Amino acid sequence: MLDSLPKDKSQKVIPNGYEEKVWKVTASDAAKNCKNYIRDIVDNLVLEPNPEKSLIALSIGDPTVYGNLSPPTETVQAVLEIVAEGKYNGYGPTVGTDDARKAVAKYLSFDGVEYNYKDVILCSGCSSSLDLCITALADPNKGHNIVIPKPGFTIYKTLAESIGVEVRNYNLIPEYDWIVDLAHLEAQIDNNTAAIVINNPSNPCGSVYSEDHLKDILDIAYKYKVPIIADEIYERLVFSETRFVSIAAVNSRVPVLVCGGLAKRFLVPGWRMGWILFNDPIGAFDSEIKKGLICLSQKTIGSNSIVQGALPTILELTPQKFYDDLNDTLYKNAKSAYDIISQINGLTPYMPAGTMYMMIKIEIQCFPQFQTGLDFMQRLMEEESVFCLPGECFGITGFMRIVITVPSEMLSEACERMSGFCKRYYQ
Amino acid sequence: MLDSLPKDKSQKVIPNGYEEKVWKVTASDAAKNCKNYIRDIVDNLVLEPNPEKSLIALSIGDPTVYGNLSPPTETVQAVLEIVAEGKYNGYGPTVGTDDARKAVAKYLSFDGVEYNYKDVILCSGCSSSLDLCITALADPNKGHNIVIPKPGFTIYKTLAESIGVEVRNYNLIPEYDWIVDLAHLEAQIDNNTAAIVINNPSNPCGSVYSEDHLKDILDIAYKYKVPIIADEIYERLVFSETRFVSIAAVNSRVPVLVCGGLAKRFLVPGWRMGWILFNDPIGAFDSEIKKGLICLSQKTIGSNSIVQGALPTILELTPQKFYDDLNDTLYKNAKSAYDIISQINGLTPYMPAGTMYMMIKIEIQCFPQFQTGLDFMQRLMEEESVFCLPGECFGITGFMRIVITVPSEMLSEACERMSGFCKRYYQ
Repeated sequence: MLDSLPKDKSQKVIPNGYEEKVWKVTASDAAKNCKNYIRDIVDNLVLEPNPEKSLIALSIGDPTVYGNLSPPTETVQAVLEIVAEGKYNGYGPTVGTDDARKAVAKYLSFDGVEYNYKDVILCSGCSSSLDLCITALADPNKGHNIVIPKPGFTIYKTLAESIGVEVRNYNLIPEYDWIVDLAHLEAQIDNNTAAIVINNPSNPCGSVYSEDHLKDILDIAYKYKVPIIADEIYERLVFSETRFVSIAAVNSRVPVLVCGGLAKRFLVPGWRMGWILFNDPIGAFDSEIKKGLICLSQKTIGSNSIVQGALPTILELTPQKFYDDLNDTLYKNAKSAYDIISQINGLTPYMPAGTMYMMIKIEIQCFPQFQTGLDFMQRLMEEESVFCLPGECFGITGFMRIVITVPSEMLSEACERMSGFCKRYYQ
Repeated sequence: MLDSLPKDKSQKVIPNGYEEKVWKVTASDAAKNCKNYIRDIVDNLVLEPNPEKSLIALSIGDPTVYGNLSPPTETVQAVLEIVAEGKYNGYGPTVGTDDARKAVAKYLSFDGVEYNYKDVILCSGCSSSLDLCITALADPNKGHNIVIPKPGFTIYKTLAESIGVEVRNYNLIPEYDWIVDLAHLEAQIDNNTAAIVINNPSNPCGSVYSEDHLKDILDIAYKYKVPIIADEIYERLVFSETRFVSIAAVNSRVPVLVCGGLAKRFLVPGWRMGWILFNDPIGAFDSEIKKGLICLSQKTIGSNSIVQGALPTILELTPQKFYDDLNDTLYKNAKSAYDIISQINGLTPYMPAGTMYMMIKIEIQCFPQFQTGLDFMQRLMEEESVFCLPGECFGITGFMRIVITVPSEMLSEACERMSGFCKRYYQ
């Protein structure tokens, strides 16, 4: 024990520049501006389910909640082996081990895209990937802004605003399957725009962009020399005849950071394995951004070593059948919900082409009893114990988002209850 | 596929405020200022091991590198069961599941400290815990600074500088077993000091503070009304008769954030399981900091769900014998290295009371062939293939840090080589 230091009798009473202050610990702007927009909205709703009816939560974007969807056997087995072996308990490089990076590079090299493992940075989940990308590109000290989709996942706003970066919304057009309103996107961009965030396939819309549409977006990025952050966490999670095209596959001249991870397609969102890939045909990221992202990855010393150790096996051995079956299950759920909701007067569902979600428009003028979509949804919960997320959680009014990962009979039951509810109030 | 949108012919050519710019993507200040100080120093050294001698790396603070130290069987088993069960693949609350938080609260409630599970936030490793604490407390927009130990672990500097927060060093005193120079600590504090970082037990010093010393530090924090971030990642990793006392056990009036995790005591640094505990007897964190930290935890959506699921079992079932054996092994390694190095003319080892490290002073005036400690170390590598981290990596010159987690025969061999090396050059 070390208590032998002679007390220094010359200790200052008050150091230079110090003024007496009360004990009040205030939070930084970074903490205060870090908002959970979904919770802010949901917490202000009166959400009392009907005690006579079982609650059906179509709100949470977590495919594991009801236990009907499980990760690939190969994925679980790979992690079990790594844990048992005990060789992946230590620190790896903060950007990930070479083997894990090689596996991701290979997994995402298709449709003519070829990644090198040095183009890969592993992160603690895709949220962390997005956090690093936004932090590296957008600088509050320079008055930067980023442009993000509306409706869109709120994490972009949460991440940007926490570091003092302004966000601007560009519209997606429901009438055209939620593609980007290109003119509106252009109108948001100015000399301080540090990045365009594209989310394809889209949460909450379930839309999947065509090659042509991606090229149009790239043209705008090129025209204004603004790099793209492509959130492709739902990559290849597409239905029926829809084909997923990564923005990397059609890009020849725009610096793009592609974000993704295991969360959705492998049904393990809690495992926190995300990645960033450099798709940068002109090398615009070489001088500063690559180094910057590597530096930023040191702040949290990388992603979980166990999942990293298992990653090569996971990405190599998961059979195509698993992916196909998952897409098929989600498609069938979406289709069956769509078919029921299409028949409901006052609701307009948008059939998704991918992801785990479906958007539904509430034709609020048909329900004079309710003033807003939020009123509608609160009453739906109160009477039918069906909980959907309001469009307000994604920046848009008059809509709600349902998840299609719940068991099919539960989803049908929820849709039938919506139907009964709307029949009572439709005018 | 969604390519049916009519092209908007009225697209602006140049949006408001936009001026033509070249394609140059610069990194944000956050990225540029996020430095790896260890790498910056090590990369500038000429480190060529002697091809005739096997390399012994005493540099890496990762106890798993040589495979001689393994995590508790119960820990590994707990994770295997959670993975096999498949119930922890989804998102939990961003601050951690209640069960995992309860387990941590219980694990750290000793010596009269009683934590509630609501005092616990789980993070993706202790680095992430520190990141959240610094980000929540210190605000670059207010010109805040934090004070950190010298010598000390560079992550504090990396994290603070990345968000634009100034760091100031307070000295630790080698002659008094590396305790805090209290007068020097006081001299660093001013009205803009947002936090005092205390690292006990200390990396790189291996020192363990007494109750009295902790009280002295608390008195200073109280006097200037500055909260403490207590990095206790090496908690209870102490040797022989030394007792670890958490700052929480002697604190009655200072708001303290205690950081820790599984990394060191459970030998699983790669698993990225860290935590923050509120030790705040006067409730100074209640108004803003608690909420702020919870908000910040949403940026990366929490820590790995598998390790979270296993945490109650890990913390409950790991037997005392495991901890005792580990401490004993490290103590024996430290003692044996200390005994050899004590006999080497020109080197002064500091026997650690805990952690995984030992500091060694290079009496550079005894080695006229070398100008600095760095020169000494490069030559030690070149001739003896023994690699230690220079004190410069921790902000101090004329010292080196060795890790004592390597196999004992390897450690002895390294010390013997140091001995031979010093004999050749000592004058």
